[in-house]
Amino acid sequence: MNVLITGGAGFLGSRLARTLLDRGTLCGQPLTRMVVTDLVAPSAPWQSDVRVQVLTGSLLSQIEALGERAWDGVFHLASAVSGECEADFDLGLRSNLDSTRSLLDALRARVQHGGTPPRFVFASSVAVFGPDGDVALPAVVADDTLPTPQTSYGTQKLICEHLVADYTRKGYIDGRAARLMTVTVRPGRPNGAASSFFSGIIREPLARQESICPVDASVSHPVSTPAHTIQGLIRVFEASRDELRGRAALNLPALNVRVADMLDALTRVAGPAVRARVRFERDERIASIVANWPSGASAARAARLGLTAPADFDEVIRQYIADCEADGSAGVALAGLHA
Amino acid sequence: MNVLITGGAGFLGSRLARTLLDRGTLCGQPLTRMVVTDLVAPSAPWQSDVRVQVLTGSLLSQIEALGERAWDGVFHLASAVSGECEADFDLGLRSNLDSTRSLLDALRARVQHGGTPPRFVFASSVAVFGPDGDVALPAVVADDTLPTPQTSYGTQKLICEHLVADYTRKGYIDGRAARLMTVTVRPGRPNGAASSFFSGIIREPLARQESICPVDASVSHPVSTPAHTIQGLIRVFEASRDELRGRAALNLPALNVRVADMLDALTRVAGPAVRARVRFERDERIASIVANWPSGASAARAARLGLTAPADFDEVIRQYIADCEADGSAGVALAGLHA
Repeated sequence: MNVLITGGAGFLGSRLARTLLDRGTLCGQPLTRMVVTDLVAPSAPWQSDVRVQVLTGSLLSQIEALGERAWDGVFHLASAVSGECEADFDLGLRSNLDSTRSLLDALRARVQHGGTPPRFVFASSVAVFGPDGDVALPAVVADDTLPTPQTSYGTQKLICEHLVADYTRKGYIDGRAARLMTVTVRPGRPNGAASSFFSGIIREPLARQESICPVDASVSHPVSTPAHTIQGLIRVFEASRDELRGRAALNLPALNVRVADMLDALTRVAGPAVRARVRFERDERIASIVANWPSGASAARAARLGLTAPADFDEVIRQYIADCEADGSAGVALAGLHA
Repeated sequence: MNVLITGGAGFLGSRLARTLLDRGTLCGQPLTRMVVTDLVAPSAPWQSDVRVQVLTGSLLSQIEALGERAWDGVFHLASAVSGECEADFDLGLRSNLDSTRSLLDALRARVQHGGTPPRFVFASSVAVFGPDGDVALPAVVADDTLPTPQTSYGTQKLICEHLVADYTRKGYIDGRAARLMTVTVRPGRPNGAASSFFSGIIREPLARQESICPVDASVSHPVSTPAHTIQGLIRVFEASRDELRGRAALNLPALNVRVADMLDALTRVAGPAVRARVRFERDERIASIVANWPSGASAARAARLGLTAPADFDEVIRQYIADCEADGSAGVALAGLHA
């Protein structure tokens, strides 16, 4: 197995790379080679694995080189995030649409010269869904809910879903698009994503820092953990076409949870002093983006693949704390819990 | 009003141009200038109207020149047809996706330099709908039916619908996407569209020629007339944002009719001898494309704009005959009707 991961230095991409290298196989085949592309090099121990090659630079600038190799599998995670795409329309088009199109065309060119179509997992997003005029947003969006995205990010993800489906129909790739739920708790610093606070309101107080929640406590949202999300991407990669039941994108499983419930879980897991570090201060820009996001999601097709959501938000927080302990990061002031 | 029509030498584009010039106004404003682009020059009397300028060549090659002008309105009809796009994947991407994207970006550039966003009507298609795995195709597709296209043509039209919606949301255009039903009866010769026979089985026998129907008589399909379709495009152009009720694409009204019903209408309108010139000879390539098309469509949003479908297929045939008589074409061997 010769595998490409785009966006492999990002949080999810890096975790996917580590998980696949630890696993050592994909679809029952040994993982012999993993090429990881991203704007910057990953800062993780796995990059020194002999199977790994890291390429840095914009994905668009790497397409020609990537097209010269034969791939058994591709995980296409590279993406500009929602806040960036709203602020810079050209950046979103270039990073999310043009890059995907060019990557697909490079893979197609190989197949048209006799190559085997690679398995291709596209990381789409729950942000494809939104309300639009007569199209109401159901309380829970399903695999087959009509997507009418209300951000450029969601629009670009949806467009790529359809490109992946059509390139698959034509036999240029064996593609599948999985809609990621909001991944929480992300480690590190806040990023440009409008959803960044869904991690921040847990991560910052655990690290003895204040955190501002820019939306009301009643806001509900479909979330999942990093581990569940990586497991989902790998399972979708390994699924047969029969198991996938269609070329359309599928939702990954979500825990549908209100901000208030997230903070109650934080109190239970880490104590009221930690919870007290979160205060509410409405940010109209963020709130208006989030208001057009679904309050929940279902994932019937993913469930049939055996994928599940976290049982509750306590589990989400505990998994984050365990991750911090495992990698020795300073993300959690563990001694301070329940202080 | 300074109006651009892309694909203006095509059957619909030319009829739209003629209708607008005859009308003389759009949104209550006088039509002062009409630029028509297409691969070839239109062969119609209206092109000598002093208000008209014709530009020939690929749309992509004209984008730079088009972007240097201010437009009050754009009707974007230029497109490769479904059969062509299945046969030549690159042609479809270039003609239907890249051209639309470039046109939208040229309009956006003007707005970003202080211009007013033009009204923009995108001619989408009922071909955006199709069955996919768990996503069944309902007997009648509605405005809000989930599109999972099963052709590259349908995929590209759907992608452009979403680009138009997002450029509209950002204020770069005042866009609206109308899904055209299969237009019948088209004059002239069969074209590369898989739907070409829906006109051929009426047009050819009326012109004393044999015609082959490549699908079963039981096949049902949503159709409309040229006049209804042009009326729909103009009404969608003139609609206010409130009237449109959302940025998502809307279906134009359709008469949902079986091939058998079309041929019965032909017998009633033109006699059994004309009907006898149609024979059935299944074409697997065409039949397999059409099998994934909807058997009917509804158009609730268009109905609220006052738009209607033809009452029956007899009306569709009579309108075609009247059109042929009006322009003195040899499309109908009129003396031969009921012979």
